[in-house]
Amino acid sequence: MRVYDIILKKRNGGALTREEIAFFIDGYCDGSIPDYQAAALCMAVFFRGMTDEETAALTDCMARSGDMLDLSRFGSLTVDKHSTGGVGDKTTLIVAPIVAALGGKVAKMSGRGLGHTGGTVDKLESIPGMRVTMEREEFLRQVEETGVAVISQSGNLTPADKKLYALRDVTATVDSIPLITSSVMSKKIAAGSRSIVLDVKAGSGAFMKTPEDARVLARNMVAIGKACGRNISALITDMSRPLGTAVGNALEVIEAAKVLRGAVKGDLYEVCVALASEMTMLFAGVSHAEAERQVAQAIESGAAFAKMKEWISAQGGDAGWVERAQYGDGASVSVPVLSPADGFITRMDTEAIGAAAVILGAGRARKEDAIDYSAGILVKKKTGDAVQKGEEIARLYTNDATATEPAAKRYLNALTVGTEPPEKTGLIFDIIR
Amino acid sequence: MRVYDIILKKRNGGALTREEIAFFIDGYCDGSIPDYQAAALCMAVFFRGMTDEETAALTDCMARSGDMLDLSRFGSLTVDKHSTGGVGDKTTLIVAPIVAALGGKVAKMSGRGLGHTGGTVDKLESIPGMRVTMEREEFLRQVEETGVAVISQSGNLTPADKKLYALRDVTATVDSIPLITSSVMSKKIAAGSRSIVLDVKAGSGAFMKTPEDARVLARNMVAIGKACGRNISALITDMSRPLGTAVGNALEVIEAAKVLRGAVKGDLYEVCVALASEMTMLFAGVSHAEAERQVAQAIESGAAFAKMKEWISAQGGDAGWVERAQYGDGASVSVPVLSPADGFITRMDTEAIGAAAVILGAGRARKEDAIDYSAGILVKKKTGDAVQKGEEIARLYTNDATATEPAAKRYLNALTVGTEPPEKTGLIFDIIR
Repeated sequence: MRVYDIILKKRNGGALTREEIAFFIDGYCDGSIPDYQAAALCMAVFFRGMTDEETAALTDCMARSGDMLDLSRFGSLTVDKHSTGGVGDKTTLIVAPIVAALGGKVAKMSGRGLGHTGGTVDKLESIPGMRVTMEREEFLRQVEETGVAVISQSGNLTPADKKLYALRDVTATVDSIPLITSSVMSKKIAAGSRSIVLDVKAGSGAFMKTPEDARVLARNMVAIGKACGRNISALITDMSRPLGTAVGNALEVIEAAKVLRGAVKGDLYEVCVALASEMTMLFAGVSHAEAERQVAQAIESGAAFAKMKEWISAQGGDAGWVERAQYGDGASVSVPVLSPADGFITRMDTEAIGAAAVILGAGRARKEDAIDYSAGILVKKKTGDAVQKGEEIARLYTNDATATEPAAKRYLNALTVGTEPPEKTGLIFDIIR
Repeated sequence: MRVYDIILKKRNGGALTREEIAFFIDGYCDGSIPDYQAAALCMAVFFRGMTDEETAALTDCMARSGDMLDLSRFGSLTVDKHSTGGVGDKTTLIVAPIVAALGGKVAKMSGRGLGHTGGTVDKLESIPGMRVTMEREEFLRQVEETGVAVISQSGNLTPADKKLYALRDVTATVDSIPLITSSVMSKKIAAGSRSIVLDVKAGSGAFMKTPEDARVLARNMVAIGKACGRNISALITDMSRPLGTAVGNALEVIEAAKVLRGAVKGDLYEVCVALASEMTMLFAGVSHAEAERQVAQAIESGAAFAKMKEWISAQGGDAGWVERAQYGDGASVSVPVLSPADGFITRMDTEAIGAAAVILGAGRARKEDAIDYSAGILVKKKTGDAVQKGEEIARLYTNDATATEPAAKRYLNALTVGTEPPEKTGLIFDIIR
């Protein structure tokens, strides 16, 4: 078998066999197939696409390229969640303890943030004492005892995806549906959970800018998850504005705790209930109505918040911190952003708001950058809200006094204020099962 | 400027600016742009194509990536010829002395053969004593004095094309019209002739399998040549059967001499007269009818054959050899191929016939292979000819007795003998000016 023939076949619109895909992934991992042939193949896939069979084979081959987490001891109770990434997306911090409180097993490996989207691991690290690395047995024991453990991706998980993603990132071949799907799903398959709920974001702060594009990706990911033998569904949710109020690591953990204590409702609460209900349907095998009832009850009863604290303690964190901490703690500078006009916020460039938070120190522009966990933004007015000139529409927190002016400028540039209220848009566009 | 943005722009169907193309070629040559980004761009070009403006800019940038031959001392008399490659294609050996005999200046750099197509330089080397390398001044002096010099491509001509072609060859991005055009035309532009005639082959022995495909390539090459300021036209000629009778280095030189002595007419003669007439029109500025008259006269008068001998002598070759040499000289083994049936040859897989000649030692399967100059095939019956079972339809020459059986098998497999004569097809399908 020659990789040249594989490139040619895909270039000419053919469907690759499982053997051809395995030959490519094995050869690319062991270095016998060079980057330039892989790059040509990725670009051919960009133009020609892949059938579901091809994408499933690619996903499976990449999943098997490294370690596979064996969660079989937990039977059908394991359930994972994946978000395609957004701004202010702290849903994992909320749904993981809810689902664990209802008997699910959430054994989750999460990433760090890069660019305008934050990472769950960074958010967890803003809790004093919280450890996000542990040995495999300790990780599994915590899942067994607490029902939830979230650690940083470690070990040799999907090395094929790591290598291929780095190549796609510099060859303009990232935004190909089968390549996105296989990248995401190979990690989920290797991570071992029986059930998976995807949160596919759509809007100005997401990779997919429209619900239609997000739907295509979600359908593909659900099909591939099923082909790989998993229970899976996908929610398509709005990312045309930040989710909830807080953008920034400690700020988001504090907001997550508020949701679990029943103190915050709104868009964030709704999306989290929908995600947790979907996860509960899958792992518990109950109806959607029953799952929703259980989820609401877990929050109202305090069981979910208790589980959050138990989880934090299990990972060495200070569980009391999520009770005590207030927005702005640890940030020496706190500056309001004022509305430039009377009217309505008609549009938010959510990606730019994420970028404003990065300027304040809440994220990384480059991998090696340090994070100021206390830095970030409270978004007080969002798309559709009426505003008055001079009214506080957001508050910036940071320890870098030089950052507030460029961040405020970036924030204001991300908003459009008009005289008429915009059309209302949905929060959850679709559920693909 | 970033190459990532250039790849993305082309991937999304945009037209690259001259500055973007120059940035890519410069960076690829100096190593600052890696192979994997170049491979992704080539595949994007394969799918998206290039406008004539882009292809002309790419051609010009590649031509300027190395040495440019300055032929300005010859004014408008310089005329080059390029064939896209075929089997038994010895036209350069014939048209170069004809055109030189008529006052044209043929300063030609040719390639060696690889795979089923032979190279002019290899054919010349089958003449005892013939040198195919020389210093630039000696080369130009020979053009001045003799009107024709043909040497092996040397020096630092179009290094960008060399590097890019090697990459395309292993990434399935060779057969892209703008990339083929820019590769061929950059070499022609760097080689400096004022006028260029292209012989674009179509058929089973050519890169382009149909006259329609060949026409698309020819139109593109003519447009780009004009955009680069050259007088240019293209003939589209038949390669559904070998051109002439001889396939193999010495055999082809001997056949070329026969044409120049007026001893051989037929398809080879016709194509050579058409090519030489087109070249004469361009360099001499005469009508087509006048050019054809001059070309026929150059052959009939013996001036063209005399010029061939003068040319061979100028390059150190034994001019008497082309008078003395007979088909089969130097080959210790000579074996006939017999017709397997009564009927008509209805089809020839010309590429396979070229491959049979390579088996006999006439060409290289790999770059490092040695050539047996005396080896090859005389094709005695071609498509359309009536054959009788057991009749000699070809003769194989070699010094490797073990090669005749596999070569004969390959040759016979390349033929289809049917009971009805095939439809007659043309020899010169089109002329693009």
